Amino acid sequence: MLYLVGLGLHDEKDVTVRGMEAIKGSERVYLEAYTSILGVGKERLEAFYGKEVVVADRDMVEMDSDEILRDADKVDVAFLVVGDPFGATTHSDLLLRADALSIPYTVIHNASVMNAVGALGLALYNYGQTVSIPFFTDSWRPDSWLERVRENLRLGLHTLCLLDIKVKEQSEENLARGRKIFEPPRYMSVPCAISQLLSLLEDESSSSSSKSSAPTATDAPSSSTATATAPVPEAAALDPSTTLAISASRVGAPSQRFVAGTLAELSQLDEDAFGGPLHSFVIVGRRFHALERDFAVRWAVDKQRWNEVSNGVYGVRD
Amino acid sequence: MLYLVGLGLHDEKDVTVRGMEAIKGSERVYLEAYTSILGVGKERLEAFYGKEVVVADRDMVEMDSDEILRDADKVDVAFLVVGDPFGATTHSDLLLRADALSIPYTVIHNASVMNAVGALGLALYNYGQTVSIPFFTDSWRPDSWLERVRENLRLGLHTLCLLDIKVKEQSEENLARGRKIFEPPRYMSVPCAISQLLSLLEDESSSSSSKSSAPTATDAPSSSTATATAPVPEAAALDPSTTLAISASRVGAPSQRFVAGTLAELSQLDEDAFGGPLHSFVIVGRRFHALERDFAVRWAVDKQRWNEVSNGVYGVRD
Repeated sequence: MLYLVGLGLHDEKDVTVRGMEAIKGSERVYLEAYTSILGVGKERLEAFYGKEVVVADRDMVEMDSDEILRDADKVDVAFLVVGDPFGATTHSDLLLRADALSIPYTVIHNASVMNAVGALGLALYNYGQTVSIPFFTDSWRPDSWLERVRENLRLGLHTLCLLDIKVKEQSEENLARGRKIFEPPRYMSVPCAISQLLSLLEDESSSSSSKSSAPTATDAPSSSTATATAPVPEAAALDPSTTLAISASRVGAPSQRFVAGTLAELSQLDEDAFGGPLHSFVIVGRRFHALERDFAVRWAVDKQRWNEVSNGVYGVRD
Repeated sequence: MLYLVGLGLHDEKDVTVRGMEAIKGSERVYLEAYTSILGVGKERLEAFYGKEVVVADRDMVEMDSDEILRDADKVDVAFLVVGDPFGATTHSDLLLRADALSIPYTVIHNASVMNAVGALGLALYNYGQTVSIPFFTDSWRPDSWLERVRENLRLGLHTLCLLDIKVKEQSEENLARGRKIFEPPRYMSVPCAISQLLSLLEDESSSSSSKSSAPTATDAPSSSTATATAPVPEAAALDPSTTLAISASRVGAPSQRFVAGTLAELSQLDEDAFGGPLHSFVIVGRRFHALERDFAVRWAVDKQRWNEVSNGVYGVRD
């Protein structure tokens, strides 16, 4: 049996009892460690589970999955994934490969940031699609995620923004020369993500100032049937001084920290305000209620401003 | 300390090791049992945790939260929630009340259907807002969720549909007479939910046939900037013979069952095809990829039809 075991959010004790039993009964244990990280190293896992843990990098999972699956029709093998096995990354290709080899599998679910972000108090029902914000480089500034944020905002929905992590990456030069030398891991911070967002908005604003009107001001509503929660086109303009956001760092860890404010406020904070990785943040949509406002005000950079924007711009009513 | 502990999806072993420790160390343990259910009763939990478990109904949580919070500044109290504490329902009101009483709290996350639905192999990134489908009555057929499904479909996004459960409900007559007599629990099945959906579509179709054109055919695209994953207005028409869906029953339980097909196909299946509660299903959006198609075809009612609709209607390319 192949067990896909979610490890949850922070440390060795976030595994479920069911997951722990599967790990202890397995002959080989692999840890997928390129899409997310725990707050502790594999040594802590090994000590707690009483098992050797093999770190499986992207190459191994994608190119050498038959080694992971070896004999799994006869013995138990555990494949550990930070969060839930189907969280931010789908490991369905590994399961299809197992199927092709007639190896049965069991998925043992756990919390991932995709549902634990509910701890911010914004109803998960009112989230739209999740986006990933990639690191910009000098020559590459991918922006397709921004249109997806806007699709959510036009419907009044919140957007969970997951931030890039670069683990075991090679520089372009080392890659070209076939040298297996890896860069130090990098984890995008909230200030970095918001500064990238603001720079895209500035690009748009400078390119549209030469036209007759800004594209965001002429967007059609997304639906011909207006409702109480109808799209609010101006919300998609993402004005930094009137767009609310809540950061969520190290969700589920004892050092978890939430910070609430306008995009402009969050962008002016030092990285220390958010602490170490992993960082994510949520852009608040107009379907925003008084209870959500009151829950998040406790983490607000400026409580008065938070309530002013909530009530005056988002139209929250008690 | 107040611990909000997610119990996960199915039985007593789905709690995390961290959650288990919090429960064992608590002086009082409450189980919230009106928004979802485990696959096992509270006796199994009590035997496994070695603790008495008090079932907290809606009245107790909403009206008598001070009893739950009593002395929680001096002793540990655990409040158990099926799934994640912030899954389908937000318990932020309880936490705000704890805050007001200067009681510290810790949230211990777990899997909920909101992230475990990833097991269907559809990327969680491509889900829009989640909807809840309520039971229709003779006089009340709420349909606001249908417009939200359409908002998702216009963007090409998948929709997780959670189905109503009625636990400890009073009949109107008993409520009016103040009699604390409760109806047997009811759990909406996939066939019931889809028949409600189809009946709403039929209503629309019969009311629009007298007009010059159907409203769904004249919907404006949701965005003026067309992209590769641009909204497909006709997708929002929800034609039962060309709209794909995947049901997910008892997610995370050993008896978990997935069934894939068109809405028309799923509506013709017997309830036995899905087994006992809890049921949910996903309406597939047009951002649908070959790997997702190939993952789900294994559960298809009619594999050939699944692939025909995926390729011919959804435009999936290898």
